Amino acid sequence: MDHTALADLRTFYEGFGDLALPAGTRSAATTLGGVPALAVDVLGDPGAATGTLLYLHGGGYTIGSARTGVPLAARLAASASLRAWVLDYRLAPEHPYPAAVDDALAAYEALVAEHDHARVVLAGDSAGAGLALATLIAARDAGLPLAAALVSFSGWFDLTLSGGSLTGKETVDPIFDAAGIQVYADTYLAGADPAAPLASPLLADLAGLPPLLLQVGTHEVLLDDSTRLSVAAAAADVDVVLEVYAGLSHVFQHHHASEPTAARALDSAAAFLVRAVSG
Amino acid sequence: MDHTALADLRTFYEGFGDLALPAGTRSAATTLGGVPALAVDVLGDPGAATGTLLYLHGGGYTIGSARTGVPLAARLAASASLRAWVLDYRLAPEHPYPAAVDDALAAYEALVAEHDHARVVLAGDSAGAGLALATLIAARDAGLPLAAALVSFSGWFDLTLSGGSLTGKETVDPIFDAAGIQVYADTYLAGADPAAPLASPLLADLAGLPPLLLQVGTHEVLLDDSTRLSVAAAAADVDVVLEVYAGLSHVFQHHHASEPTAARALDSAAAFLVRAVSG
Repeated sequence: MDHTALADLRTFYEGFGDLALPAGTRSAATTLGGVPALAVDVLGDPGAATGTLLYLHGGGYTIGSARTGVPLAARLAASASLRAWVLDYRLAPEHPYPAAVDDALAAYEALVAEHDHARVVLAGDSAGAGLALATLIAARDAGLPLAAALVSFSGWFDLTLSGGSLTGKETVDPIFDAAGIQVYADTYLAGADPAAPLASPLLADLAGLPPLLLQVGTHEVLLDDSTRLSVAAAAADVDVVLEVYAGLSHVFQHHHASEPTAARALDSAAAFLVRAVSG
Repeated sequence: MDHTALADLRTFYEGFGDLALPAGTRSAATTLGGVPALAVDVLGDPGAATGTLLYLHGGGYTIGSARTGVPLAARLAASASLRAWVLDYRLAPEHPYPAAVDDALAAYEALVAEHDHARVVLAGDSAGAGLALATLIAARDAGLPLAAALVSFSGWFDLTLSGGSLTGKETVDPIFDAAGIQVYADTYLAGADPAAPLASPLLADLAGLPPLLLQVGTHEVLLDDSTRLSVAAAAADVDVVLEVYAGLSHVFQHHHASEPTAARALDSAAAFLVRAVSG
């Protein structure tokens, strides 16, 4: 990815940070485990929160920022009565794999040190969902207490790019093609093994993970990342819900203000998180 | 399957018809498209129904009856404000494939002739869920109006028995093993091709089907029938939700009176049906 293309993409992607927020949303710059983050409060009274959300934004590990993650994090937090943190994990190519995982794990560790892990949940979109899953796996392997649930919007879980939908859905995916995904993978990995479990958590041992909710559209080259993760989770005795939305595209949840199905998907995700933190 | 074993199994399985029913449930013998059925009314005022449920009981196409389907049908109907019909489709070995499909399609055709198809939904457990899916496919191919949704509890969709869980989950499935499933398949098929799309709807063209909800436990040899159907439905641009319940076994929904997760699964299925008939 050349430097100009990257700068343009980053500028373009920042537009997601301009999406409408729930009334009364306040964001404040802070750090979490030494990693820059935005603390997002949508509840007025912070004491009203029933749990804590760590949200990891998308952008192929190379673009996006905490700010671009705030609209979806705030919508989830408002609907599920959560306090949210959106992480500014380090991006490639400046900081290739495993910098993002290191940052997310440090933030996660700080969060579960301060909050009851049974009321901590993770969510993310696209690469952010993959990073959230990698974080849970790293946390499990490090013996940290595990969060109560993970929500994925169009998660990217396989950097080996072995899903059939990668080419099979190219003609209906309005955003990505296989070659574009390959560029993101190469940029993030910078020569590291794409099959490493914390780069491609689809290939990791999933045993012992908390309940997963995987939302995905059928018009996505990344469709099979979610369907295959649901199969692998089920085989590993993990509670998993896969919600496939016909005709919708990558991280359609961004468009919840105009697309009723996207709003319903976010309501479903919020209900899933409410159950997780109250169960 | 020898005659004595079959008779014993049928007697045993009739016990599912004794499970508790929602207060006020009334069942009446009737026919639907010439096929014996029980009409199940749980709402007191039949005019209060917002839709119509056709329920197909499980039992490997060889055991069970409309009566054994009533407890789950009535629970769904009560939670989703539906009128229900539970079909006494013909069983093997007396009536092998495709007798069950013929009966279910005749009943379905009668139902959509009398009711707005957008307010008709199908549900079934185990073989009954496979039969419900085969019925939808046969209805689509016959040019009939399509129901609004299908709910499957531990559906059996692949009579070629090619799922990895068939042996992979044998040690944790408290009910079935691969050899037992093979006996049911052989008895039903009586020499017919197990890969016929209306015998193994997992292998059918799924395009154009209405939303599917597939619930399954991880302690089931039939786990992969649901996970693979969700993958195939997603590839075919069909709305599909897969709910995998860790540690639960075949048609755990039967035990909703004592198992909170089973009650929650039925509530989720009812909410799915409510959305379908109101959307």
